[in-house]
Amino acid sequence: MSTHMTTQEKALALHKEWNGKIETISKIPVKSREALSLAYTPGVAEPCRVIAKDKEAAYQYTMKANTVAVVSDGSAVLGLGNIGPYAAMPVMEGKAVLFKEFGGVNAVPICLDTQDTEEIIKAVTWLAPAYGGINLEDISAPRCFEIEERLKATLDIPVFHDDQHGTAIVVLAGIINALKVVHKQKEHCKVVVNGAGSAGIAITKLLLTYGFTNVILCDKVGIISTTTENLNWMQKKMVTITNPNKETGSLADALKNADIFIGVSAPNIVTAEMVQSMAPDSILFAMANPTPEIMPDVAKAAGARIVGTGRSDFPNQINNVVAFPGIFKGALEGRATQITEEMKLAAANAIAGLVPDEELSEDNIMPEAFNPKVAELVAEAVKSHITK
Amino acid sequence: MSTHMTTQEKALALHKEWNGKIETISKIPVKSREALSLAYTPGVAEPCRVIAKDKEAAYQYTMKANTVAVVSDGSAVLGLGNIGPYAAMPVMEGKAVLFKEFGGVNAVPICLDTQDTEEIIKAVTWLAPAYGGINLEDISAPRCFEIEERLKATLDIPVFHDDQHGTAIVVLAGIINALKVVHKQKEHCKVVVNGAGSAGIAITKLLLTYGFTNVILCDKVGIISTTTENLNWMQKKMVTITNPNKETGSLADALKNADIFIGVSAPNIVTAEMVQSMAPDSILFAMANPTPEIMPDVAKAAGARIVGTGRSDFPNQINNVVAFPGIFKGALEGRATQITEEMKLAAANAIAGLVPDEELSEDNIMPEAFNPKVAELVAEAVKSHITK
Repeated sequence: MSTHMTTQEKALALHKEWNGKIETISKIPVKSREALSLAYTPGVAEPCRVIAKDKEAAYQYTMKANTVAVVSDGSAVLGLGNIGPYAAMPVMEGKAVLFKEFGGVNAVPICLDTQDTEEIIKAVTWLAPAYGGINLEDISAPRCFEIEERLKATLDIPVFHDDQHGTAIVVLAGIINALKVVHKQKEHCKVVVNGAGSAGIAITKLLLTYGFTNVILCDKVGIISTTTENLNWMQKKMVTITNPNKETGSLADALKNADIFIGVSAPNIVTAEMVQSMAPDSILFAMANPTPEIMPDVAKAAGARIVGTGRSDFPNQINNVVAFPGIFKGALEGRATQITEEMKLAAANAIAGLVPDEELSEDNIMPEAFNPKVAELVAEAVKSHITK
Repeated sequence: MSTHMTTQEKALALHKEWNGKIETISKIPVKSREALSLAYTPGVAEPCRVIAKDKEAAYQYTMKANTVAVVSDGSAVLGLGNIGPYAAMPVMEGKAVLFKEFGGVNAVPICLDTQDTEEIIKAVTWLAPAYGGINLEDISAPRCFEIEERLKATLDIPVFHDDQHGTAIVVLAGIINALKVVHKQKEHCKVVVNGAGSAGIAITKLLLTYGFTNVILCDKVGIISTTTENLNWMQKKMVTITNPNKETGSLADALKNADIFIGVSAPNIVTAEMVQSMAPDSILFAMANPTPEIMPDVAKAAGARIVGTGRSDFPNQINNVVAFPGIFKGALEGRATQITEEMKLAAANAIAGLVPDEELSEDNIMPEAFNPKVAELVAEAVKSHITK
């Protein structure tokens, strides 16, 4: 591979060479008639009979125990937008790769050729029996909220929209550690979340669950408040639980005296002046990809104490890969029927705890993604918070 | 594992140990930030963009090129009947094992939690983008006919109901070789197919396509003819293309002077007397599992020249595993959009041709399932008969 190639060119060439990033393999060799008679007919009839009597036995005798479906409709893929189910496949295969490589969890990509909410709910409901969990991925807001909520209500396996909750969990983990570094209490912090889509809303909800009280949600129009027009049903719901001081105005207005900025929005929309207007020891997670809401050096020069981004070439990468593999590993091992708020908080605390207090610093609030302990400890934390 | 265990007991214990017979693995190690940036974000965006412009590129950049979905609703599983999607999983996983072990084809088991024809058609249509082919499995007749026909009409990837066509292809392969052994011509043979479900109907159709002219289809009520009551729509259609001499009566009546009996029905329903009433050099494929329509020794003693069964412990095992892995391997490699009658005939001829004429005998009409050449040659034959 030429060293002159860009990451994009290299990735394209490699994807062609790979021709699919995952494969299904047999755990067992079938090289003899006896092996065939045990793995397939006639022997296979016996586990079938046992499961027919008690479908819970599927967890003992089938791949359901350790396999998730990664389901997308391709409507909100990475920074690419609505590219549809075919074009979404490389991302879903990549997700399946990460599930296995980081969490030891088998994952099957399923890209649905429909973007109708009711049809997606039906499709996932119908295909659920084979899988121990459903990871929803890259489904646009606000449809993603209804799809997830309704599937959670009816399916007896965990349903988890990673763009929402995976992101919220890693953000919370980072915030937990950042607060330790700057010695602030969550109860006294003013938090501004910019981007009122799936990630921003889930982050806001989890921060509130964790104990933050003053969280302001902003979108392109500025602060989302009771007077904001054209909100979707979920954004309207958010108005009732955020912005307790009923602030109005632009993002710049919101950031005045804010302790924490969390961006899941667009490149370069936060200025040095805005950072200067924040409270001392400010924390900024500027996670727009690939170009953050503000570049770390600019933010730091303007007075920010801690800056995190989605990128691996800056300190403090806020990356879902430290969350979802361990979360599903734990949920599957513990045979969870859903992923509760307690499990999410436990995962965030476990991720934060992976950086020992004595190693915490402005530039070291997140654990190393390639540390094999991450998924293991996250899984243990999630497992120990399963309520049956 | 105790040597005193039955196959059933062993299979159950092994299925528990395996806890799923297939797994998804990453083709590529992701051990560094650079690897992550190529397999996942930001590099992955590039193949996504290319596919978004031309969905055919999915065959170059995703697993679609070499992956089939094995789809069942659990309504007609092996000899077990309607056991539902959870209990059907060990069979579908077994099928996925065989796809990979025999054909090198990745296969994903999908057991649908619906047995409604319209819903199954919708589900398969929606989940199709990720896959290069759909193998329908263990769906009850006559729903299976409509489901397959309608999916074939709308999807741009091969849809293949193996219980129908896989069985028909291996039966035809066996018949081709059996006729060589007994020196009979297809045009002069009277054929009786017993069992008017998915397999029996597909066998009958393929024999007619191949050039047999006198095929009589029987079911529990005896010969299916214009006067038979309570036929389903597909059986009614079969009446118009079978039984040219308008015979009526029982299976015993049908078998008088028949050259070939093909059973996909029930244990022990063919008697020695019935075999005695057949034409000289008769051929019987008694494929009811695990107990055939007549035991080979009984049939032979009554005058049968060639007897095949579904079992591996008798000569001439008629086993789909010599067909479907190679058929999909060839269809995927040749980027077929469907599996046509020509491709099925080519597969049957290839399977038959795997037993060289000089090795053909009464007890050797089928190739060895574990011969690695089988899938390879079947794939080549199928590929060379793809029409675009």
